[in-house]
Amino acid sequence: MEKRSIGIGLMGLGIIGGQVVRVLTEKAEMLAEQAGCSLVLRKVKVLPEDLKRPLAKEIPAALFTTDDDEFFNEPGIDIIVEAIGGENPARDFLKRSITSGRYVVTSNKEVMAKHGAELQALAQQHMVGLRYEASVGGGIPLITPFKHDLVANDITGIYAIINGTTNYILTRMAREGIDFPTALKSAQELGYAEANPVNDIEGIDANYKLAIMASLAFQTVVKPEDIYREGISRIGSRDFRYARELGFAIKLLAIAKRVDNSIEVRVHPVFIPEDSLLAKVDGVYNGILVEGDLIGKVLFYGQGAGPLATSSAVVADVVASAQDIISGVGNRLKWKPESGKRLKPMDEIETQYYLRLSCADRPGVLAQISKILGDNMISIASAIQKETDDTAQTAEIVLTTHPSTEKAMQQALHHIEQLEAVREISNFIRVEEI
Amino acid sequence: MEKRSIGIGLMGLGIIGGQVVRVLTEKAEMLAEQAGCSLVLRKVKVLPEDLKRPLAKEIPAALFTTDDDEFFNEPGIDIIVEAIGGENPARDFLKRSITSGRYVVTSNKEVMAKHGAELQALAQQHMVGLRYEASVGGGIPLITPFKHDLVANDITGIYAIINGTTNYILTRMAREGIDFPTALKSAQELGYAEANPVNDIEGIDANYKLAIMASLAFQTVVKPEDIYREGISRIGSRDFRYARELGFAIKLLAIAKRVDNSIEVRVHPVFIPEDSLLAKVDGVYNGILVEGDLIGKVLFYGQGAGPLATSSAVVADVVASAQDIISGVGNRLKWKPESGKRLKPMDEIETQYYLRLSCADRPGVLAQISKILGDNMISIASAIQKETDDTAQTAEIVLTTHPSTEKAMQQALHHIEQLEAVREISNFIRVEEI
Repeated sequence: MEKRSIGIGLMGLGIIGGQVVRVLTEKAEMLAEQAGCSLVLRKVKVLPEDLKRPLAKEIPAALFTTDDDEFFNEPGIDIIVEAIGGENPARDFLKRSITSGRYVVTSNKEVMAKHGAELQALAQQHMVGLRYEASVGGGIPLITPFKHDLVANDITGIYAIINGTTNYILTRMAREGIDFPTALKSAQELGYAEANPVNDIEGIDANYKLAIMASLAFQTVVKPEDIYREGISRIGSRDFRYARELGFAIKLLAIAKRVDNSIEVRVHPVFIPEDSLLAKVDGVYNGILVEGDLIGKVLFYGQGAGPLATSSAVVADVVASAQDIISGVGNRLKWKPESGKRLKPMDEIETQYYLRLSCADRPGVLAQISKILGDNMISIASAIQKETDDTAQTAEIVLTTHPSTEKAMQQALHHIEQLEAVREISNFIRVEEI
Repeated sequence: MEKRSIGIGLMGLGIIGGQVVRVLTEKAEMLAEQAGCSLVLRKVKVLPEDLKRPLAKEIPAALFTTDDDEFFNEPGIDIIVEAIGGENPARDFLKRSITSGRYVVTSNKEVMAKHGAELQALAQQHMVGLRYEASVGGGIPLITPFKHDLVANDITGIYAIINGTTNYILTRMAREGIDFPTALKSAQELGYAEANPVNDIEGIDANYKLAIMASLAFQTVVKPEDIYREGISRIGSRDFRYARELGFAIKLLAIAKRVDNSIEVRVHPVFIPEDSLLAKVDGVYNGILVEGDLIGKVLFYGQGAGPLATSSAVVADVVASAQDIISGVGNRLKWKPESGKRLKPMDEIETQYYLRLSCADRPGVLAQISKILGDNMISIASAIQKETDDTAQTAEIVLTTHPSTEKAMQQALHHIEQLEAVREISNFIRVEEI
C-alpha cells in the first residue's frame, strides 16, 4: 500500500492539541520528508468553548466538529491523536478509534496507566498502532527506549524524578530553606503548580507515569492502585537541613525495582546521596534513571512537560505511525504482559530510613529508641541529637538506619510512638543509595 | 511474509562479537518473544586466531568459517552483524552484506563516520535495514532518538562527552590535581586507555561519533575531515586550578551547532560552567546534550562503551531488524542528507576563550595584551595575574573573553605571541556557556 498522504484526526484543542496543530502546520514539509508522505489534518473534534480560542481562528472552520459520530465517520482519517486528557470520555474515544481501524497516538497518562493493557490488547487485535510516548516525560524519549533500545536488557530498576511541579517545590525548599506551604504558594503564583495541586503533590501524576513505565519495563500489568504512594507535603525545612548535614538530597522518586521474580513499585520522598546524578536534576526538569543487566545505568533528562516538549513526542509518534501505515505494518510492538512477576507488598520492601523525632530532653531516650529498633532487627547507621527548645525541654533526635524491611520499621515506629518520652515522630523518609 | 525464525550471521568474534553471541544464546527465549520469532545464529565469520578464544569452544564448530564466500553464500542468514571494527575490510563486508539482501547491524563508528552516506544509500537501494545504534554511545539510545523520537524538532545543538577514556583522564586531573601524563599512565594501567592512546586522546574517536550524530541531526553529510579537532594533551593541571577558580569544569566536547543555515562541528577541550549537568558527567561515563526547538534540552547519560552496553544496542538493532523482516518492511528509515546546510569554516565560529600566558613580571604587560585583544574587537571578561616565579621574573596572566570569532582570536594570539614581554602562550581553551 503506497499512499501519498496520511490523514490526521485530532481530539481536543487544548494547550497540547493546539501545539500539535501548530507543529503539523508549520513543519509540514519537513515532516512529510521524514514520514515519506504528507500529513494532513482532516478533522478536529472540539468542545463548543474551544472554538473561542485564538488558535481556532487559524484553522479552517470546516475542519471542526463537535459531533463524535461526524468525527469518527470521517473517511480520510488514518491516525487519531487524542489530546483530551483525563480518564473519560478519553478511554471510550480511544477504544472507538482503535476499533474503527485507526492508528492512535495519545499523550494521556491517566488512561494509559489505568487502561493501557486493555487498549494495547485491543490495538493488537485490530492490528493498528497505539503510541503514547508523550504520556511520560514530555519530549524525553522513554517509551521507545523501553520498547526498542533496551529490549535486550533485564531491567532491574527505574528511579525517576518524573513530576516537574514537586521537583520545583523541593528544589526551592532545598535552596532557600523555605517551608512546604511557602514553596507551594510560590509555585502556584508562577504557574508551576495548579490551583488544586493535589495530583502533583500527592504523587498521583508520578504514580500514573510509573505504572506505564513499570508495565513496559517488566512486561507485567502494573496498575496505579498497585503502587504505594506518598506525597511531599510532610517534608519540612528541617528535613532539608538534616539531609544536607548527612550528605543527601530529598527528591520525590517513582521507583520500580525487580528483586528476583518480584517487583516493588512505589512513589514517595527519598533521601538520595547528594553526589548522585539524580540529585542534580533540579527545578521543573525530569530525570529518569534506568538500570539494566547490560546497559548498567542510563539516565534520561529533560523537560517532562509543557506544550512544546509534549508536541515533540506526539508528532514523532504520528510520523512513526504514518511510516507503519505506508509500509503496511499493523501493530508493530508486542504487548505480552505475561511475565508472571509478583508485585511485592509494601511490607516486604527493604530500604534504609531517616527518622526525625521530637523527644523529652532527658537522659536515656536515645537508648530506649535504639532498643526498640534493635528488637526489630534494625541497626542504626547514624544519630544526631540536638536541643531544640529549652523551655519545652524537648530535643530533636535524627536517626538513619541500615536496610530493614518496611514491616519491621512500621512495627518499630508503632512502639517508638508509645514511648512516654517521645512527643512526636516528626518525619520518616526512606533512603536509597543510588 | 511470516517467518518462524530469523537467521543471524556474525562477522568477528572479538570482545563485542563474543558478547553478542552470549546475549543471543542466554536470552534466546526473551528475545524471541520481543522479536516475534526466534533468532538463530547460523554462521560466524572469524579469523583463524579467533578460534583459540575460550568462547569459541562454547559455539558449535560447524558455525565457524574463515572463508568470506562461505559466509556470504550461507542461505539461512537474514541479518548480518558486523563486529570487526576498523575501516577495512569492514566497509567491503558491509557493502557485500547489503547487496546480498541482508539486513545489517553494525557497531562500527569508523566505517559509519567515513562511509555512512554510501552505505545508507546502498541499503535504501536494496531495501534492507542498516542499523548502527552501537556505533555511538554504547548502550545509550542516540541513533533511534535522532531517527525517531526527535524527528519533529529542528535540532539546534549537540554537546557531547562521548569518549570515556578522555573523560576518565580529565576527571582524574580535576579531582587529584595530577598532570596529563600521570593521568594517562594510570588510565592505561587500569585498562581505561589503550597502549597506543592516540585515537582517544587526540579526539579521533569523538570525531567519528560526532560525524555520525551531526549527519543524522542536521540531515547533511558531515565527514570526519569536516570536523575541527583538538585533543586533550595540552591541558595542564594549572588549567584545572584556574578553571575551578573561575567556576568552570574542563571537558572534551564534541559540538555540533546550527546557526541559521550553517553548521559548525568541532571536537576540542572546553570550559563549561561547573554547575551545568554535563560538568557532572564524570569518569568513563558519556553524556550527550541535545537541544531542539521543541524539546529544549535533553540529556542522555550512561556507559558509552564496554561489551555489555554495546551488546545491548547491537541486539536491540537485531530485534528491530527481525521485526522489520517479519513485517515485510524494507529500509524503514529515510536517508535524505540533502538539507543544503553549509559547514562553517572554523575561522567563522564565535565563542568565548580562556587564555593562559607566561609573561615578564613587569608593569604594562597586561595593557599591551589588552590592546591587541581590543584591536581585534575582543573584550576581556575576567583577568587574573599571579606571580609564579620570582627568580625568572615571570608572571602568569589568565584571561577570559567575551564572544569573538575564532579568526579574530587567532590573529590576536599571533600578535600577542610576538610581544617581547610574552614568554609563552601556555594554553587557550574555548568556553561554552551551556
